[in-house]
Amino acid sequence: TRSFRVAVLHGDGIGPEVVDQAVRVLQMVSDGSPDFNLQLEPQLFGGAAIDATGEPLPASTLKACQQADAILMGSIGGPKWGVDAKVRPEPGLLTLRKTLGLYANIRPANFASEALLEYTPLRPDVARGVDMIVVRELIGGLYFGKRKEASAEPDIGTAWDTMIYSEDEIKRITRVAAQIALSANPPLEIHSIDKANVLACSRLWRKTVTETLQKEYPQLKFDHNLVDSAAMVMVANPNKLNGVILTENLFGDILSDQSSVIPGSLGLLPSASLAGAPSKPSPDFKPTLGLYEPIHGSAPDIAGKGIANPIGTILSTAMLLRYSLGLDKPAMLVENAVRKVLDLKSNGGFGLRTADLGGSATTEEVGDKIIQVL
Amino acid sequence: TRSFRVAVLHGDGIGPEVVDQAVRVLQMVSDGSPDFNLQLEPQLFGGAAIDATGEPLPASTLKACQQADAILMGSIGGPKWGVDAKVRPEPGLLTLRKTLGLYANIRPANFASEALLEYTPLRPDVARGVDMIVVRELIGGLYFGKRKEASAEPDIGTAWDTMIYSEDEIKRITRVAAQIALSANPPLEIHSIDKANVLACSRLWRKTVTETLQKEYPQLKFDHNLVDSAAMVMVANPNKLNGVILTENLFGDILSDQSSVIPGSLGLLPSASLAGAPSKPSPDFKPTLGLYEPIHGSAPDIAGKGIANPIGTILSTAMLLRYSLGLDKPAMLVENAVRKVLDLKSNGGFGLRTADLGGSATTEEVGDKIIQVL
Ligand SMILES: CC(C)[C@H](C(=O)O)[C@@H](O)C(=O)O
Ligand SMILES: CC(C)[C@H](C(=O)O)[C@@H](O)C(=O)O
Repeated sequence: TRSFRVAVLHGDGIGPEVVDQAVRVLQMVSDGSPDFNLQLEPQLFGGAAIDATGEPLPASTLKACQQADAILMGSIGGPKWGVDAKVRPEPGLLTLRKTLGLYANIRPANFASEALLEYTPLRPDVARGVDMIVVRELIGGLYFGKRKEASAEPDIGTAWDTMIYSEDEIKRITRVAAQIALSANPPLEIHSIDKANVLACSRLWRKTVTETLQKEYPQLKFDHNLVDSAAMVMVANPNKLNGVILTENLFGDILSDQSSVIPGSLGLLPSASLAGAPSKPSPDFKPTLGLYEPIHGSAPDIAGKGIANPIGTILSTAMLLRYSLGLDKPAMLVENAVRKVLDLKSNGGFGLRTADLGGSATTEEVGDKIIQVL
Repeated sequence: TRSFRVAVLHGDGIGPEVVDQAVRVLQMVSDGSPDFNLQLEPQLFGGAAIDATGEPLPASTLKACQQADAILMGSIGGPKWGVDAKVRPEPGLLTLRKTLGLYANIRPANFASEALLEYTPLRPDVARGVDMIVVRELIGGLYFGKRKEASAEPDIGTAWDTMIYSEDEIKRITRVAAQIALSANPPLEIHSIDKANVLACSRLWRKTVTETLQKEYPQLKFDHNLVDSAAMVMVANPNKLNGVILTENLFGDILSDQSSVIPGSLGLLPSASLAGAPSKPSPDFKPTLGLYEPIHGSAPDIAGKGIANPIGTILSTAMLLRYSLGLDKPAMLVENAVRKVLDLKSNGGFGLRTADLGGSATTEEVGDKIIQVL
């Protein structure tokens, strides 16, 4: 029996509530299989860690994450540790990403179930069929370049940040996008996003993406899009961006948040941040260390009420099983269970929904039902 | 009789077609008034200037723009001067903005007529009532900071760009936003956008905006929003961003393009890029040099067919009259004429529409009708 270690960072706000359900799902998957065994190890992180230890990323948490095969996380932050707080959760997350080398952030935006089309803010005919995966470079660019705060000498009153990219950083994220594109049949199209009419980084980006894809993945179709135009198309005609959206850190931050509301069911969307490029097309992705979390935030306004949607976190465990543990079959079982619970009765499902999708099911009831189906 | 000089840059693609109609409108306004006189002076710019002179911004054009009271422009660029072209139109535009000090880019996104609600890609109930004005800082930030191309020594294979802002640059654009907010009754709310949880520039931005508004405009309501969250809210619940959206150059590029498709009638939207902060609330804006253009691009695919929508450019002349010439009444007349031409017959209008809005009117017919109403 293979044994895997999964560090569990419960997060703040609704984090602990939704992560608890995801942990139950992982435990169920583990208990039900003779082939592998998951060790789930809770660790302090984010606001909860600030309250307990004074810092968002205690050394013991970092170490446990480094030694783990995968990390499951609930969103962090909340008004208690707001913009004016001395110690904030975000730097903990950035340090975790950088230290673990989690350079590939993967965020699908699609309809977990056709029955949910009614929740998109777009006209159904505009949104129908949307199926985008954002692949965002996560540890380069403006986030990690040199910067100067305005209050520091010698130029009081002037602040700056540096967007910086090397060819190698662009190459490796391009390969992740390519391998994800190849994991579908037929392969997905790649839409690379930049601002090459203004930025030097973007010109290097465009050139490196073109060269890498032409040389290493000649079978893939790709195009280049300016970030402003992409933000426009994503609302006006999102189906044009179906496939893999490949972009750098800051543009990916903006576009992945934007894309996540197109299907209208933010609470359903998972994400993965990976350390290694998968070496081959799925289902043979080479397992790599990864951090998995829902796309939604910590939603302090509904925390403690037991009504948050746990599905984004549960689908994150499916990504965890697939990308970090190489367990493609259990991953698919979890995804199918989720679909069945969401689908309307007329489609053979249970139509069980939390409040964000107009239903009245509790967080726990959704967890119960998914486990029952599993 | 006061005399004003207006430089006219026809642009590329559909540019000349839509600018021609706007020029007719300005000529009509000028001819119809005993109080002022407009001198319209065509100048070479953009792709057309590259073809004629080898450069996008000939010295004679720059000089004419510097001496003018206002500039009317059609969008520039097209496949002929694409990413791989040696000489491209965009640097001409950036130089023009910087040299003339056009630091305040103003882009309204609203419904020129309620009758057009059917064209938004959003659900009508989500889009109804949207009324945003993006105020974008236009000559700072990543666009104009120091940069290094990847091919240059000493670090072959690494490129960087610098986002840089001074307190003064942030203050002056904040004042423009504030004065636009005050020009409405009741005053508009200001939504400042940044990425203060990561960027030093954004922390200076947030601090300076807060201080400037609290001290100089205590009557105004404002809030701060992270750019990723704003991109999300703009799709999911755009009415939450009604009012003035105040932001730096790159975020403004992305968000203003995104906002422009929310009303679903990109062809109707005007924009202004101003050199001086208006010193008082409208209708007493102090006139200042400005460049006016529609938000849409040069649309090479429909160029030469005479079917482009001229209204974005015609409404740009209304902004020109108001912000650069201080002629508020003629500006309102132009806006009212446009509304009448667009409104359905049942609303007392003409319901005249070009192809982008499902109609069959030509560019010229729309121009004719607006002039007739004027
Ligand atoms: C919390 C913040 C630093 C982070 C980011 O900007 O990367 C978040 O917005 C995200 O997208 O995961
Ligand atoms: C052409 C380009 C340089 C320009 C910009 O990015 O500012 C355009 O996108 C705009 O918004 O006016």
